Amino acid sequence: MITAVHEAARDTIEVGAAAGAYPVFVGPDLLDQLPAVLSAYASAHRVAVISDDEVGPIHGASVARRLVDAGHEVTFLTFPAGEASKTRKSWSILTDDMLKAGLGRDCVVVAVGGGVTTDLAGFVAATYLRGVPVVHVPTSTLAMIDASVGGKTGVDVHAGKNLVGAFHAPSAVVVDTTVLATLERARRAEGLVEALKHGAIRDEAHFSMVMERTESLVAAEPMTCAEVVAASVRLKAEIVAQDEFEGGVRQMLNFGHTIGHAIEAAADYRIGHGRAVACGMIAEARLGEGLGITETGTAARLSEALAPLTDRGRVDVDGTRARQALAADKKSRDGRPRFVLLRRIGEVARDVGWTHEVDDDTAHAVLDAVVGGW
Amino acid sequence: MITAVHEAARDTIEVGAAAGAYPVFVGPDLLDQLPAVLSAYASAHRVAVISDDEVGPIHGASVARRLVDAGHEVTFLTFPAGEASKTRKSWSILTDDMLKAGLGRDCVVVAVGGGVTTDLAGFVAATYLRGVPVVHVPTSTLAMIDASVGGKTGVDVHAGKNLVGAFHAPSAVVVDTTVLATLERARRAEGLVEALKHGAIRDEAHFSMVMERTESLVAAEPMTCAEVVAASVRLKAEIVAQDEFEGGVRQMLNFGHTIGHAIEAAADYRIGHGRAVACGMIAEARLGEGLGITETGTAARLSEALAPLTDRGRVDVDGTRARQALAADKKSRDGRPRFVLLRRIGEVARDVGWTHEVDDDTAHAVLDAVVGGW
Repeated sequence: MITAVHEAARDTIEVGAAAGAYPVFVGPDLLDQLPAVLSAYASAHRVAVISDDEVGPIHGASVARRLVDAGHEVTFLTFPAGEASKTRKSWSILTDDMLKAGLGRDCVVVAVGGGVTTDLAGFVAATYLRGVPVVHVPTSTLAMIDASVGGKTGVDVHAGKNLVGAFHAPSAVVVDTTVLATLERARRAEGLVEALKHGAIRDEAHFSMVMERTESLVAAEPMTCAEVVAASVRLKAEIVAQDEFEGGVRQMLNFGHTIGHAIEAAADYRIGHGRAVACGMIAEARLGEGLGITETGTAARLSEALAPLTDRGRVDVDGTRARQALAADKKSRDGRPRFVLLRRIGEVARDVGWTHEVDDDTAHAVLDAVVGGW
Repeated sequence: MITAVHEAARDTIEVGAAAGAYPVFVGPDLLDQLPAVLSAYASAHRVAVISDDEVGPIHGASVARRLVDAGHEVTFLTFPAGEASKTRKSWSILTDDMLKAGLGRDCVVVAVGGGVTTDLAGFVAATYLRGVPVVHVPTSTLAMIDASVGGKTGVDVHAGKNLVGAFHAPSAVVVDTTVLATLERARRAEGLVEALKHGAIRDEAHFSMVMERTESLVAAEPMTCAEVVAASVRLKAEIVAQDEFEGGVRQMLNFGHTIGHAIEAAADYRIGHGRAVACGMIAEARLGEGLGITETGTAARLSEALAPLTDRGRVDVDGTRARQALAADKKSRDGRPRFVLLRRIGEVARDVGWTHEVDDDTAHAVLDAVVGGW
């Protein structure tokens, strides 16, 4: 059965984790393989399928049906779509619904959706009866490339994004690139921001590949998507395997995210993660150029690559709130934010460790500028 | 400095954990060693000291003062004393208070209090920015013997106790048995129930030692308490090191807790954990005797040992709610509770694995009987 899964998948990437390695299966038409994946990597009679109320009726229901057909007892739970649902409240409701359904430690959570769903359902699984297995079925480009790999789970709070959560590696990840056809075009494009980020911090050739294929990626061509997602997952997996709990090299994945998260928080998560991270990458590249750490021209090249993917106009946020959110960043030490800075496209600067402390005035200047449009 | 800690402690027990072993220092007058313990095992400039509002003004403040004197920046947080505070709401408030104080990933949580505090503050630490270190300073017999060792953290929800939480091993545990003098006598006695449990499942000699020394233990004689706490921690540490995430042998620690937790939940946590577990141990011993698994006379011997420690009268709970809580137990499979059963004092029965499935009528009969008094 597992041979069939490996054969059906265009690519299989093994991600190293303390609790045991897990596979990420990538390719078109992989949803059919889900029962086989469960029985091999997260065997359980009872399954909680968690989706939002937009993805749920389409892919959540289709996953649930496949699992019922395979003999599982399925509890199907949905929550309102959108980042505004990534809260402790939604987490409590989903947990209580699972308790009401009588799910014991021998259950498994299957998260079907975008990054909000994989983060939220992952945190539910991480804390349900002190932890049950989770299998991720990401349905957005962003979740396929980024959110479903690495074991980060969590919710947002008023003070900022992902400030409450846990590391909880999935038992397996099933990436079916065919489902991208149902995603709106703007969200497909936005998800590619993280693929460019993987290239920017680690692999210039990957950066160029994503740039060159932007058009067919945005058009959701399943094989091209599978190729780029698999390459991006492989880059991330290499980093995560070296440093699961983000003590060292994994911090480089935060490039663009210090300012990106601050903008998202200040906008009350009404703007997409990809757009916020695009702003963050531009701003942090400019920051590095200004400090003489990042090669001149890097911000311009990022700008060229990112422009087809997201809105580059003014972001409607309150500047004071964005600065407060910046100070509350998880990487802060003594209330001062720290930044991952590039040396050039394909390489991060390591002069003083993985993150650089930057004085508030300099950080606020690039933040204010990028919020005005780039 | 660390040599000084080891010398000051009567006993040091190393507990194995996936994230690295941690020491449990046990002895009289150990609070003075806390700054040295922090600098060796959880080095951080900024510290959140978490206590309830009864222990806080006494031991929490004294710990905070020692840390300030040693040069730490301390955020001192308290919550209302009692099991009713072990909720997602308290967890949210403490988390938000730490965020407001601007504590970053480089902080450490010091939990000063009983089991409610170590469980709650431990869960805050487990999920704060996806996890920061915690050092436990247990101040009740129960927390010293049980709650602070093993890395279980969590909160209660309507459906039952500890149903939401995480495994998050502490960086170190400092058990100062001198502080037991400030604990009310009834709570000192009640905490010894878990020490008897450790003997009942694993070591008959330990069971007898606790029985023989009950009087000086309840009188909080610091060296006797240190001796018994250290022996009990060592027994638990052996079990936890073999099975940190409770897949196997660690399940034996749940002896008395299936019915104990159900009674606590049905009583809305208005009765002490020790009293509930004493009921649970008696009931589950009777259950095992009835099934021919547990040696005849075991329940009577438990009863003799437990009688001086806790109220054996009728517990005021609704029987229907207790049965519902039993079905929601974390060990349940397909909604049917499972029980750890003794072979005799000092040994658990392993005929069919660590836990035994019992039909509802039999389980309800022993539950109802023990609630009526023993």
